[in-house]
Amino acid sequence: MSHNTFGHLFRVTTWGESHGAALGCVVDGCPPGLPLTAADIQYWLNRRKPGTSRFVTQRREADEVKILSGVFEDDRTEGQITTGAPISLIIENTDQRSKDYDDIRDLYRPGHADYTYDAKYGMRDYRGGGRSSARETAARVAAGAVARRLLTDVTIRAAVVQIGKVAIDRAKWNWDETENNPFWCPDADTAKLWEALLDDARKDGNSVGAIVEVEATGVPAGWGAPIYGKLDAELAGALMSINAVKGVEIGAGFATAGLTGVENADEMRAGADRKPVFLSNAAGGVIGGISTGQPIVARIAIKPTSSILTPRRTIDRDGQNAEISTKGRHDPCVGIRGAPVAEAMMACVLADAMLRHRGQTGR
Amino acid sequence: MSHNTFGHLFRVTTWGESHGAALGCVVDGCPPGLPLTAADIQYWLNRRKPGTSRFVTQRREADEVKILSGVFEDDRTEGQITTGAPISLIIENTDQRSKDYDDIRDLYRPGHADYTYDAKYGMRDYRGGGRSSARETAARVAAGAVARRLLTDVTIRAAVVQIGKVAIDRAKWNWDETENNPFWCPDADTAKLWEALLDDARKDGNSVGAIVEVEATGVPAGWGAPIYGKLDAELAGALMSINAVKGVEIGAGFATAGLTGVENADEMRAGADRKPVFLSNAAGGVIGGISTGQPIVARIAIKPTSSILTPRRTIDRDGQNAEISTKGRHDPCVGIRGAPVAEAMMACVLADAMLRHRGQTGR
Amino acid sequence: MSHNTFGHLFRVTTWGESHGAALGCVVDGCPPGLPLTAADIQYWLNRRKPGTSRFVTQRREADEVKILSGVFEDDRTEGQITTGAPISLIIENTDQRSKDYDDIRDLYRPGHADYTYDAKYGMRDYRGGGRSSARETAARVAAGAVARRLLTDVTIRAAVVQIGKVAIDRAKWNWDETENNPFWCPDADTAKLWEALLDDARKDGNSVGAIVEVEATGVPAGWGAPIYGKLDAELAGALMSINAVKGVEIGAGFATAGLTGVENADEMRAGADRKPVFLSNAAGGVIGGISTGQPIVARIAIKPTSSILTPRRTIDRDGQNAEISTKGRHDPCVGIRGAPVAEAMMACVLADAMLRHRGQTGR
Amino acid sequence: MSHNTFGHLFRVTTWGESHGAALGCVVDGCPPGLPLTAADIQYWLNRRKPGTSRFVTQRREADEVKILSGVFEDDRTEGQITTGAPISLIIENTDQRSKDYDDIRDLYRPGHADYTYDAKYGMRDYRGGGRSSARETAARVAAGAVARRLLTDVTIRAAVVQIGKVAIDRAKWNWDETENNPFWCPDADTAKLWEALLDDARKDGNSVGAIVEVEATGVPAGWGAPIYGKLDAELAGALMSINAVKGVEIGAGFATAGLTGVENADEMRAGADRKPVFLSNAAGGVIGGISTGQPIVARIAIKPTSSILTPRRTIDRDGQNAEISTKGRHDPCVGIRGAPVAEAMMACVLADAMLRHRGQTGR
Repeated sequence: MSHNTFGHLFRVTTWGESHGAALGCVVDGCPPGLPLTAADIQYWLNRRKPGTSRFVTQRREADEVKILSGVFEDDRTEGQITTGAPISLIIENTDQRSKDYDDIRDLYRPGHADYTYDAKYGMRDYRGGGRSSARETAARVAAGAVARRLLTDVTIRAAVVQIGKVAIDRAKWNWDETENNPFWCPDADTAKLWEALLDDARKDGNSVGAIVEVEATGVPAGWGAPIYGKLDAELAGALMSINAVKGVEIGAGFATAGLTGVENADEMRAGADRKPVFLSNAAGGVIGGISTGQPIVARIAIKPTSSILTPRRTIDRDGQNAEISTKGRHDPCVGIRGAPVAEAMMACVLADAMLRHRGQTGR
Repeated sequence: MSHNTFGHLFRVTTWGESHGAALGCVVDGCPPGLPLTAADIQYWLNRRKPGTSRFVTQRREADEVKILSGVFEDDRTEGQITTGAPISLIIENTDQRSKDYDDIRDLYRPGHADYTYDAKYGMRDYRGGGRSSARETAARVAAGAVARRLLTDVTIRAAVVQIGKVAIDRAKWNWDETENNPFWCPDADTAKLWEALLDDARKDGNSVGAIVEVEATGVPAGWGAPIYGKLDAELAGALMSINAVKGVEIGAGFATAGLTGVENADEMRAGADRKPVFLSNAAGGVIGGISTGQPIVARIAIKPTSSILTPRRTIDRDGQNAEISTKGRHDPCVGIRGAPVAEAMMACVLADAMLRHRGQTGR
Repeated sequence: MSHNTFGHLFRVTTWGESHGAALGCVVDGCPPGLPLTAADIQYWLNRRKPGTSRFVTQRREADEVKILSGVFEDDRTEGQITTGAPISLIIENTDQRSKDYDDIRDLYRPGHADYTYDAKYGMRDYRGGGRSSARETAARVAAGAVARRLLTDVTIRAAVVQIGKVAIDRAKWNWDETENNPFWCPDADTAKLWEALLDDARKDGNSVGAIVEVEATGVPAGWGAPIYGKLDAELAGALMSINAVKGVEIGAGFATAGLTGVENADEMRAGADRKPVFLSNAAGGVIGGISTGQPIVARIAIKPTSSILTPRRTIDRDGQNAEISTKGRHDPCVGIRGAPVAEAMMACVLADAMLRHRGQTGR
Repeated sequence: MSHNTFGHLFRVTTWGESHGAALGCVVDGCPPGLPLTAADIQYWLNRRKPGTSRFVTQRREADEVKILSGVFEDDRTEGQITTGAPISLIIENTDQRSKDYDDIRDLYRPGHADYTYDAKYGMRDYRGGGRSSARETAARVAAGAVARRLLTDVTIRAAVVQIGKVAIDRAKWNWDETENNPFWCPDADTAKLWEALLDDARKDGNSVGAIVEVEATGVPAGWGAPIYGKLDAELAGALMSINAVKGVEIGAGFATAGLTGVENADEMRAGADRKPVFLSNAAGGVIGGISTGQPIVARIAIKPTSSILTPRRTIDRDGQNAEISTKGRHDPCVGIRGAPVAEAMMACVLADAMLRHRGQTGR
């Protein structure tokens, strides 16, 4: 990964600021012949779109994607397909309210990248966070939609498993439920608790953190590579690169510290085609950096939204003490919209791993 | 990161198997003029070396490093210095006992990369885990020693903060203590508890996991880059690439999920030179992927050693059910020796970030 | 370089087809604080623009560039400046006539990438050559304009030094003349000969090749890097990647084969600041892959335009024999418009070299 | 390509100085299961080895290669095979005579990288040119030998086609002859002329340049990629990175400037399997950056050896005027030993292209 590009064979470069004219990405290295329309991508973008419930930002963005290159259709193709050339995707910004940011142009919002961008670049685009805004994640979701076209045998889905201090009851996990509430919550009872929790946070001018779990099933054994190309290392980098993420774990993750070797061993029994049937999945589907054939399971911790109404102490660009209270239209729990973004990053990492594996081994 | 190379300007490529003739690395892109001798590197290697206490593997490896290229000394230089050319480091393996592995050549050890390497490559070097062995981490530590030469104002150190279910008392944290016990434990009282814990695990033919915390102080604000070159994303990838690591967190990490925005905000007060004094460090020294000037703090979860004497169920290469009990000389808690390795990876990531920041901004 | 991206710290990714909606590029890694407006870029694009004389294609493209991201302006900046974030540039296609290509959709034009794209991807976008069209070079010129902003002490300029078999008289070289004729010819007398030559070629339904020389002055000694990061190796790759280029040489180039060591040695005399004054420049400003401080001089051979009216033998997609005569609006000598493109590639390579040198050495 | 690494999936990193303990390379990304022994590599190294005739340097180096990692053999493999892990190759230097270089430590040899390394790094390893020595090319040849194991259907061979001003007669081209003279000359008559030419040059304390042609047959259509990943662009970069190379051309190369479009078109006739039979190969086997299925043909210009006995004017490190006459054991025509190196680079580029093509397209 390098600044604004990630991936090796399946490579994604994103660009755009929160309050610029548009944002987008270029997906390079995509195999030819995959069906791909703007509508295919739009489906996934709509799941991340702001303004869909009272629990996410009220910024009204259509998030309408256009495909500018890399696809082709004529009377001999079955619909529009990829050509193997770079796929350029663009999403115009339509609801910027840059004036909202006039009073923060000289103040560093705690938890935001205001101070660090200034420290690095000697200046910053303060309108809505500029490049550091989570709006950039729309481009990731768009790229992930292309990756999914390639991963025809893989299912990738995410769920929010904790908001604030309230975790779901894993015994009640039902993937279908994630479509029935505005939290991607797989446990209907917990979803109700979160409603109250989030309404309270908003009333308090406060925000809360979350944990998102993302899973990929259908990945064959053998994807990934040793050492610095490990599938879990690349997943960790990709997921940690999502705005506000402060932790990544694979499989049993941090809990493995408290396990014994006997408990942690994913025992195997004979399955079909000389493949093992694993009796557990503490490894989260990756051992030695290479997929085992089991579901790949990752969890990410997303910090509470830094933009809050409650005043916090800070300094201004001249180094003077100040207070700041962030107005504007913000997610009370930015973790919720992190679910579709985590799926997208998982998809991009897997697409790249698939192509690299095929490149090296021919399989 | 790409297979066996990581870094962009400061680039490390490692090679070697557990039971081959040698292992090593090539460090490319290192600035010229840095003092560097084999003894400088040996100092750090000795901290990771096996056989130093009864709590780590009894394999006897001198882990003696030689510098084969990239340094120069004559009567005009102040000792031996780097030239800017690639630095090739080699460590010979001296205590391989490949026969120990004859009975596992056809069996897949649970938790080990045996099955996944076979699935990927259609074959594997089963002697001591081959390329997937933690012996590869010696090369990382050697590379990290070079990186430290560049990071003259940065102090990087790691501590083990949990073994099994027993965490340290952070109120008793004393960095000096980490040199007084065989666990890199910063809390003398907890170190004693771990002694018993590990002796029990070994007697039981079992093993335990651990959590390691690694910290870099002295990193100025501004290192790192947006989006896919985020300092924390690169750290996450680098740390997750260490053998047996299953989770990475930065700053407050997974705990941020349970915090509110008010709690999580690292408030600022006016400091010297228009720089902020932060009142807390939930961010772990990185915001928006760029360093804040505060200590950079990461924690990693390391699973229990997979090589245990207690028999576990598995299959063989022909897909038949079997049982396996791993003999040989293994760490009862591989997490302990993870501490110097985590330091090394932190050093390499920071050295690369420093050079890239200087490249883009001239600072 | 990787598919559609090149550069390491200063990285350019281009996208777009000849007959798609638009084409463009993303310039990543650009230092912050550089003045940059669309007009700055447009100046260079206009020099490559089609339709400016009867000797280039009559396709009418405004080639109007828009900056979609990576710049910022407010009352504290001196005009619009770069932020350090990726700069997305877009140029809309306005004069596609895709119908012109209906009769070639099933035929492979000799010299064009029709057959090779089909062989690689199993399909192709045949409208105007799709991704393989020289229209892509507009994106390179746009990226080069950004690179020039960084290279404030460097002057990059190109001249056409041969068209067909008619070379310029180097004794008459006058850079100012390149602005006075439609060929970027530095020798006014030769320019007149080329007029006749090209008119003849067009009347004959034929085309001619050319040699372009590109030079950068003001590059300090020390840019570039050993072995695979050699400045001349990267220049060679970048220049050879331009459409229709079949040869690249540096300094005395292929003529060095016929020189002796005595003749080829660029002797040195004492200059200011312990720097040498070179008595010749057979090296073309690069020795050992690193700049010498002398002008960097490269020449490229550009094959004659493959789209010609004269019928040529070919096959169709079904493998049947056929004849083809390419209609449409084509450059009789595509080498002419190669001059601004060569300048752009030189600029991008040097910008990357400058940042990488600064990164590694701090100078 | 990045400093001392090149390639994407098939990646080579080289290290070592002329007068250090050893030199070598790490070949990463090699597919598993390829037969590979030290003897396989030694065969190719021996063709580049110094001291084989009076027309090359008399330095006596066994150039004996050892494989330190990445291969495996047991009673189930058919001999020693690659594992997919990085292959570390080492060649010890045995005949350094560093004292030969004492009188040049303060002088910049014209044509050598002495001044540029100093300008870049502020110091240099002056013993035998250090990293800039052509001894580094042994590592390239070793890597190329690994690449050849992968390219089972491809034949790569090089010939010297010009020394000084004397070119071969292409009508007399006979590949077998290249094994019968010390010049890799495919024309027996010209080889005799070169003998006299080189003896004269050596007696005169002078040296001569050369042109090497390298050809790969058996490459299927479809390898390579558009724009910056063009096969010819990568070849150009790889070949220009060889010491002393000043020009690269593909197919008709610089001669295409003087051709018309009618002449330059490689016409096609119907062949087997819907593939074309080309009637000429001006393109040198690459169109649009992608292989056509025809032989891939490249030529490189190699400047005369810079180390000559005839005194040349120069300056010393203090910026004072001086004269230099280079003693030591040098090739009178370094181009001769360039032939096996050019083959190796062609092999590495093709191996990488093959894996990347397979990765993206599955073919």
